[in-house]
Amino acid sequence: MSGSRCDGVVALTGGVGGAKLIWGLAQALEPSALTVICNPGDDFEHLGLTVCPDFDTVLYTLAGLADPERGWGRADETWAFMAALETLGGETWFRLGDRDLALHVERSRRLAGGEGLGTIMTDICRRLGVDQQVLPASDDPLRTMVATADGELPFQQYFVRERCAPAVRGFHFAGAAQATAHPRALAALSDPGLRAIVICPSNPFISIDPILAIPGMTEAIRAAKVPVVAVSPIVGGAAIKGPAAKMLAELGQEVSVRTVWRHYGDLIDGIVMDTCDARLAADADHDKLAALVTPTVMTGPEERIGLARAVLAFAGSL
Amino acid sequence: MSGSRCDGVVALTGGVGGAKLIWGLAQALEPSALTVICNPGDDFEHLGLTVCPDFDTVLYTLAGLADPERGWGRADETWAFMAALETLGGETWFRLGDRDLALHVERSRRLAGGEGLGTIMTDICRRLGVDQQVLPASDDPLRTMVATADGELPFQQYFVRERCAPAVRGFHFAGAAQATAHPRALAALSDPGLRAIVICPSNPFISIDPILAIPGMTEAIRAAKVPVVAVSPIVGGAAIKGPAAKMLAELGQEVSVRTVWRHYGDLIDGIVMDTCDARLAADADHDKLAALVTPTVMTGPEERIGLARAVLAFAGSL
Repeated sequence: MSGSRCDGVVALTGGVGGAKLIWGLAQALEPSALTVICNPGDDFEHLGLTVCPDFDTVLYTLAGLADPERGWGRADETWAFMAALETLGGETWFRLGDRDLALHVERSRRLAGGEGLGTIMTDICRRLGVDQQVLPASDDPLRTMVATADGELPFQQYFVRERCAPAVRGFHFAGAAQATAHPRALAALSDPGLRAIVICPSNPFISIDPILAIPGMTEAIRAAKVPVVAVSPIVGGAAIKGPAAKMLAELGQEVSVRTVWRHYGDLIDGIVMDTCDARLAADADHDKLAALVTPTVMTGPEERIGLARAVLAFAGSL
Repeated sequence: MSGSRCDGVVALTGGVGGAKLIWGLAQALEPSALTVICNPGDDFEHLGLTVCPDFDTVLYTLAGLADPERGWGRADETWAFMAALETLGGETWFRLGDRDLALHVERSRRLAGGEGLGTIMTDICRRLGVDQQVLPASDDPLRTMVATADGELPFQQYFVRERCAPAVRGFHFAGAAQATAHPRALAALSDPGLRAIVICPSNPFISIDPILAIPGMTEAIRAAKVPVVAVSPIVGGAAIKGPAAKMLAELGQEVSVRTVWRHYGDLIDGIVMDTCDARLAADADHDKLAALVTPTVMTGPEERIGLARAVLAFAGSL
């Protein structure tokens, strides 16, 4: 974004569901108008490599390389590496495709050489033809830890290895207090041309909270003084994807868009809920929160673009 | 080898040519009788991974996984990783196949965790069904540096990236003086059951000298007091494979099996030369060295086994 335009949008996102809306926003906006801040809490070290699942899902989605069925990784992927690794006795619970692996190896090599994560990923975005500014929330490591009935687990162990089976009691974002918000993320949030901040339909607890836990990030969002709208990942009392609904229940919270907007509290100016949740719009109004009721299930490209346009128009109306 | 047997063989080897004879020896001997000491000088750090080309060629050859055409890497290999890496701007001059990559990633992960290279590779050998004892000459890094007319180059940059084009002036084995010979290699050399030491038809300067440069290794070979026989990689004034002939010429030496045996000097008790070099047997005799004249070009499995048996019989006769 430059100071001379006034159509800037900053979007906060996790993986799959958020990435779909990011793709829609990318079709609805000039590339230079969109800055994406990705959840770093899913990142982890695996097989000696730094893997950034949420960032990479956004990257692959914007680059047109994402696998549309699986929801993670690349389309037309092959698995020769994993098969060979298994014969060597290596860890295979987190599956890395042969093409996807190149990203992890190259990123890890450059990180070891002292480059910042944001610089590396910006370069890789360019090489894959992604012109939007996609940023990690921080160059510093931040790792979501899941407190469960079975003890604390690193996020991917909870999410992939244990398939979200252990009952969740809470979350801890290791490294968050020491992390510095990415300077270009803060710059986008303080750009005079910014017109809206969008919180994508990602899990508030494990996809958005890690971003907000970085010192200065929440303050920068408030200081931007532009409409902040969140799109609910909970639709009709269930999660579109992922463990959000199970988590809410285990945390003793109502599995509802209401929990989403109350979680964000006064950080947001508007909530976007699915048409099937229309009856809750009055409750939002009661909470003095603007609500947009619109189809939010992004089954295809038209739905992604339609939701993006609706969200932008909603923010513009606030 | 156990102290109660007397058929132990230790073989020193580099990559492709040496690995063929190692395979032949493996067919001719009980698995427990053969200890292979691999050249560590070709090892290097690439893409953040520790790659051990000569060791891996021996491993894949013994495991029946080697590509018979290419001379390196695995058969039925795929290259999706390399293709993806290229689109990310990564280094592609050293090609790592998708299956081969699993070995480098798993080895590097375990090295970073503090395990010794020999321990890791012994475990991986077992998993790939290799029952012979295959060892790196040292757990410590030793890197062959090539002095050329264009300056000093790390070995793989000279060998693969520059395709051996720069004229060679000499070699330096970085780290050799600080390296500790692998204790199991020394144990095999001092085992009372040892009956022969075989120097495979590998490049003396860049495949065998790095092993011999490790403090204590040459001394252990001499102290074994068993016949030491070298198989010439130079046949009829040319190298079967690799840059040995070009190197010898650039170093101002005769491209001949004579240069090989004189290079090893009194470390060896016998030289194995190809039938096409039969006329040089008298020269070996003049140098007071036993010579075996036999077909040494290993075009297929029969030739590998035939040469292995001939070499063992020759050593047994000394």
